Amino acid sequence: MEKELVMGIDVGGQSTKLGVVNAEGEIIAQTVISSLQQELIDYINELTKAIKGLIAETNKTGKVKGIGIGAPNGNYYKGTVEYAPNLKWSYDADGKPTVVDLAALVKSFTSLPVTVTNDANAAAMGEMAYGVARGMKNFIMITLGTGVGSGIVVNGEVVYGHDGFAGELGHTIAVRDGRQCNCGLKGCLETYCSAMGVRRTAQKLLATNPEAKSPLRDLDPENISSKDVYDAAEQGDQIAIDIFKTTGQILGRSLADFVKFSAPEAIVLFGGLAKAKKYFHDDLVAAMEENQLQIWKGRIKVLYSSLKDSDAAILGASALAW
Amino acid sequence: MEKELVMGIDVGGQSTKLGVVNAEGEIIAQTVISSLQQELIDYINELTKAIKGLIAETNKTGKVKGIGIGAPNGNYYKGTVEYAPNLKWSYDADGKPTVVDLAALVKSFTSLPVTVTNDANAAAMGEMAYGVARGMKNFIMITLGTGVGSGIVVNGEVVYGHDGFAGELGHTIAVRDGRQCNCGLKGCLETYCSAMGVRRTAQKLLATNPEAKSPLRDLDPENISSKDVYDAAEQGDQIAIDIFKTTGQILGRSLADFVKFSAPEAIVLFGGLAKAKKYFHDDLVAAMEENQLQIWKGRIKVLYSSLKDSDAAILGASALAW
Repeated sequence: MEKELVMGIDVGGQSTKLGVVNAEGEIIAQTVISSLQQELIDYINELTKAIKGLIAETNKTGKVKGIGIGAPNGNYYKGTVEYAPNLKWSYDADGKPTVVDLAALVKSFTSLPVTVTNDANAAAMGEMAYGVARGMKNFIMITLGTGVGSGIVVNGEVVYGHDGFAGELGHTIAVRDGRQCNCGLKGCLETYCSAMGVRRTAQKLLATNPEAKSPLRDLDPENISSKDVYDAAEQGDQIAIDIFKTTGQILGRSLADFVKFSAPEAIVLFGGLAKAKKYFHDDLVAAMEENQLQIWKGRIKVLYSSLKDSDAAILGASALAW
Repeated sequence: MEKELVMGIDVGGQSTKLGVVNAEGEIIAQTVISSLQQELIDYINELTKAIKGLIAETNKTGKVKGIGIGAPNGNYYKGTVEYAPNLKWSYDADGKPTVVDLAALVKSFTSLPVTVTNDANAAAMGEMAYGVARGMKNFIMITLGTGVGSGIVVNGEVVYGHDGFAGELGHTIAVRDGRQCNCGLKGCLETYCSAMGVRRTAQKLLATNPEAKSPLRDLDPENISSKDVYDAAEQGDQIAIDIFKTTGQILGRSLADFVKFSAPEAIVLFGGLAKAKKYFHDDLVAAMEENQLQIWKGRIKVLYSSLKDSDAAILGASALAW
């Protein structure tokens, strides 16, 4: 009997990663295309060709029976990507992000069943199937990337909600009347605890401590990355250390409130910023415990993804297709 | 064939209400006992006798096949009531609230299967089976009583979480470093939007507006109830009107964040304070919309329970027993 395979696709703001996955959860072939096309037809054209290329490549191993796609603002119920500011090809003629029927388009050109979900939900599924959340029925995945995403698992299933958009914890208010967010609200968690948030905290701490020396001063303030701050912290830079401290405190306070919602076994952190865990983990846990109800004090695990970033997203998306 | 019946029990801080419910969702017999006993054995004794009395009373109609109990800090997985500050009979010898195996005790003395959940979860089940949430698969029940409770329904099922304690939204932080809560944290939603919270807002507004006349000044500040404030508002008292305005604004902001978690079809408000809806509904909705992401603006219903308070709790608890 021919082996069954599935394809997982991770649509990111910069690039789209595709992988063919076998029943053992191994990525047996993968490729990458750009996500920066300005026109929808150009993106779908490249994507379709990459899909067909991978199918041809794995033809001898088995048959790809479906495609799962994780994308920003992906809607599980409708198969759409809706109003995604970071995907230019999703913009309408007036230059505004609109609704793209991604599942329908990919299905039209591949004749395969296609399921879409948002990227953080896909990461949660990957973590549940192959990562640190294996065997867990209740956990919350927080993705710390350019923004902050979340995937919530209750009773072993991703929560999609009434409309398919559940799990926008990056836009819960961490600081009332705080920093302006791209979404229009103020003080969203993602304005503090994402790569963008770390940059803003860096800019702020550099400005409010004009006497403090820091290698971060040598960089363009508009381009400071989490990696830059991490490298500075590694050199013992106090500003960099304080940036992660603040980030951890704000994230920990918010996580305490998330626990009050779904009483998860663990919170799993994922994404670029999570790599700096040694500089924020203790402050995060302290703030979380300080803001926690007695019944949960010391009981909720804070874990870090054990999967390679690209693998988790591909594996998670592929899990949709089984 | 003998008709099947179930019993629903609502354990409140003041009284415990019991009802026998038929398959049509009608309460065919009910009774009330006090919840103020100091000793566990006294409470269980009275409760057991009330249960047996109701069973005898409905004997000719059908057979009670199980008991569902809604109680503060009730744990669905363990059948326990854990650390409930308002139930004196749950205190240990050192005068501290402890863990009571309520399901096991009631089962021992009645030989019936017993299921326990927290009172807000029971109300959510009642609303889903018989109230305004009928047919809904995703909604959030917020009970505005002495405190603020919550029951979260996802995919048609109450969310219990890893440990059975999910849904403590009354203790999410509405105001960072705000009012001291009984739970030990500061700024919990329930310190603003419960009967206690309304009293504290009344005390504050009376103190900060010493010149403003108000019928509320004639009352003992420690005993101002939501009903008192409602009555004052009915007389056109501006302080009373402002109390509900503030309450609605703070609740609306928090509800906006709850939506970001589970993307519910509706939020259902229940409990004594909800009766004053005409004085806070508009401010609540305005604050919720102002703090909402674009995808949900104008889309989340705010509904009010259509069931009588005691009925909803009994019906909800009984739904556990089917």
